[in-house]
Amino acid sequence: MGPEEFRRAAHELVDWVADYRLRAAGLPVRSTVPPGAVARALPASAPEEPETVEDLIADLDRVVLPGVTHMQHPSNFAWFPSNASLSSVLGDIAASGIGALGITWQSAPALTEVEQVVCDWARQLCGLSAGWHGTIGDGASTATLVALLVARERASAGSQRRGGLQAEGAPLTVYCSAEAHSSVAKAALLAGYGAANLRMVPVRHPGREMDTGVLAELMKDDVAGGYRPAAVVATSGTTSATAFDPLTEVCDVAGEHGAYVHVDAAMAGSAMLLPECRHLFDGIEGAGSLCWNPHKWLGSVLETSLLYVKEPGELVSVMATDPSYLRSAQDGSVVQYRDWGLPLGRRFRALRLWSLLRLEGAAAIRARLRRDLENAQRLASLIPEAQGWELVAPVKLQTLCVRHRPVGLSSEEDLDRHTLAWCEAVNASGAAHVTPAQLDGHWVVRVSIGAEPTEWSHVEALWDLMQQKAGEGAH
Amino acid sequence: MGPEEFRRAAHELVDWVADYRLRAAGLPVRSTVPPGAVARALPASAPEEPETVEDLIADLDRVVLPGVTHMQHPSNFAWFPSNASLSSVLGDIAASGIGALGITWQSAPALTEVEQVVCDWARQLCGLSAGWHGTIGDGASTATLVALLVARERASAGSQRRGGLQAEGAPLTVYCSAEAHSSVAKAALLAGYGAANLRMVPVRHPGREMDTGVLAELMKDDVAGGYRPAAVVATSGTTSATAFDPLTEVCDVAGEHGAYVHVDAAMAGSAMLLPECRHLFDGIEGAGSLCWNPHKWLGSVLETSLLYVKEPGELVSVMATDPSYLRSAQDGSVVQYRDWGLPLGRRFRALRLWSLLRLEGAAAIRARLRRDLENAQRLASLIPEAQGWELVAPVKLQTLCVRHRPVGLSSEEDLDRHTLAWCEAVNASGAAHVTPAQLDGHWVVRVSIGAEPTEWSHVEALWDLMQQKAGEGAH
Repeated sequence: MGPEEFRRAAHELVDWVADYRLRAAGLPVRSTVPPGAVARALPASAPEEPETVEDLIADLDRVVLPGVTHMQHPSNFAWFPSNASLSSVLGDIAASGIGALGITWQSAPALTEVEQVVCDWARQLCGLSAGWHGTIGDGASTATLVALLVARERASAGSQRRGGLQAEGAPLTVYCSAEAHSSVAKAALLAGYGAANLRMVPVRHPGREMDTGVLAELMKDDVAGGYRPAAVVATSGTTSATAFDPLTEVCDVAGEHGAYVHVDAAMAGSAMLLPECRHLFDGIEGAGSLCWNPHKWLGSVLETSLLYVKEPGELVSVMATDPSYLRSAQDGSVVQYRDWGLPLGRRFRALRLWSLLRLEGAAAIRARLRRDLENAQRLASLIPEAQGWELVAPVKLQTLCVRHRPVGLSSEEDLDRHTLAWCEAVNASGAAHVTPAQLDGHWVVRVSIGAEPTEWSHVEALWDLMQQKAGEGAH
Repeated sequence: MGPEEFRRAAHELVDWVADYRLRAAGLPVRSTVPPGAVARALPASAPEEPETVEDLIADLDRVVLPGVTHMQHPSNFAWFPSNASLSSVLGDIAASGIGALGITWQSAPALTEVEQVVCDWARQLCGLSAGWHGTIGDGASTATLVALLVARERASAGSQRRGGLQAEGAPLTVYCSAEAHSSVAKAALLAGYGAANLRMVPVRHPGREMDTGVLAELMKDDVAGGYRPAAVVATSGTTSATAFDPLTEVCDVAGEHGAYVHVDAAMAGSAMLLPECRHLFDGIEGAGSLCWNPHKWLGSVLETSLLYVKEPGELVSVMATDPSYLRSAQDGSVVQYRDWGLPLGRRFRALRLWSLLRLEGAAAIRARLRRDLENAQRLASLIPEAQGWELVAPVKLQTLCVRHRPVGLSSEEDLDRHTLAWCEAVNASGAAHVTPAQLDGHWVVRVSIGAEPTEWSHVEALWDLMQQKAGEGAH
């Protein structure tokens, strides 16, 4: 496709995007298609001859949009805010349009250096010290894997350069809160530690944060038993209940045994932009690495995940290779991001965050985050006053864990069924979307406030809808 | 940013993109900035107040473009073609604009099912059997890591669910060609096998493919020595010299010891679209997985890497987790791509490839690939006829490995210096870009033909430039 044909097509497409965002609020939040419907609506094979952009846009309307749960809908309270601010979309358009290739500094110095600069902008906005050095990856799962690979090589003094983990003597152990994200267990398993060497530390109530007293005991017992504690993954803002592990204590305990500390702040990291929230992250400076996803609440388009490390040299020692065709005169004097993570090549990821921060400005972003926190507190103040409703966990940020207990319900199993039923009724209405999750083995409903267009009126409408559906289900 | 503000800004930006593509041919191919210049040209902190899209575009011109090696330039012959066809850019604009979140099938059925459909379209275009099931990842490095994790768990009967690789007895071994991409060694090390258990199999000459006789001996010796051969990574199209490992033989040898076979066809996989090239991949059906990057020669924007597996169930058994907040009624009846790789969430990656295939059509893509093969053969026919010039490896596809040996040059070290010097002179001219690489410990220059706008006239101009610069360097 030539540039002039692109120009015409792209004008049409960006109008379609703008129109979609304008009308998203009128669409059912949750996708309405059954399994297989999208696949069946498409041809079985690629076309031999070119189609037009009008064909493509028609299929976006006919096939794609009905098959999407609208994350940019003001009444989307599901999973976590996955905002794709249009200011960030612009940066991504520039990235794809330029089509630069990041495999060495030389292949696109700006791709590397804008990434350095933007990571540093984000660091400053979070009030993190200048000791942190950032890079952009695809998500928190990958960041945790990278961190646990670094921890593995640290604890084994570089086993991968010798006989690998399989040649090691004392088994390495990993610790995380019992409410840590499933990606922590996945990363520990993929990194080769083994499920038997992953310790899920129980949480304290009511805050649901890691019990560092138990962590200390587990580590002590492990060391006595011939194990080597390699890493603690602490969570700042768990997925289910937004619990914050006490980082100062975690780092102290880990430090006694020389274990590496990685902080998973994937969702909640955006709260570091607000000085009044930073106490939740007290102690973070003692960690070795931290991950925060601006592609969640902050508003960058997806696959913008920040991994900050304290010792880039250690990271590079685990990740670096040095093939001839990538060498250039500047090696050594510049950052080579291929040696900071799993992939070799990367697209111009930094532009998404660069355009977001520049076109919104930090003040407006902070104001939006505060709006969401206020909406969450406002809803949280209504729930305990309503008959049968309860908050199942403290509301630390913008997510509420909610349950409705009808009068006369006899068992916890019935309560679970009731919870899932009214949750499904809310979602089936198309007017809003929330997700169920388990806490202490029982179902709750998560209300995650923070889609970019969500105002109090939308939260209020959700609360009405929840009461209506739960009330109907109770009869 | 609201939809109407986006509309205005996006129109301006896509015009800028179209204009950039029009004028790219007039820019110096290689970035002209010294280390640190881009970073210094940007403010030290994020702005508090919003800037305008005009500010952003001005900085794209002032800071970003001079700091980019133009992969979309017709005289770019460096690394590998990293095409970002404008037809694919359109799909990416739609993806960012929709802002869907792929973490479960339910969160965006279309995101999952278009990915299934497009992977199958691509499979058919390559003449691969219906036994292959595809998914889209970020690149070949990640795909190889995933494959070696699957192989590790296969050979250890699921060690990660027990004590991990560290609890295993017989060490697992991995095999690849000595000319395999550095990402294979990186993946083997990260997967925990250890450098001591990675066998680099020597290559045969002149084709530089893996010597499967030696592979068989190595495996036999390893088994006799108490090792367990876990995986062979075969390369279809090596980075330096486009060598093709003999897949039938590789699979036969691996099969004797129950070792898993992964095929890295990252760059050359696009050649499978051409029936006349498929003989290079003979035997591929015997492998367990294969990776091919449509974000290279084929023209998709970056981070569109296809991983095909024969046994999705085996992949899922290694990658799956099952957290409560991701469960939905459709689990079990649909594909959950979060269990097919490292990341949990994904953007709408399939649209990039969907729009490329639909807006170009398969026939035009094949014609473009054939154009590049013809240009490579045409240049290959000129080189041996020119005084002092030689082809250092057979030209299997669109990459040539070239050297110029001036009369009277006394040593191989002098030849290396001469090679690097004229390569740098070509690149410093700004008129074209090529990359040096090592073969058998000595430098050659790779001419990788296949940027989307590259016609014979550009290749001819490069050849003139090479002769000029090498001639000047010889005096």
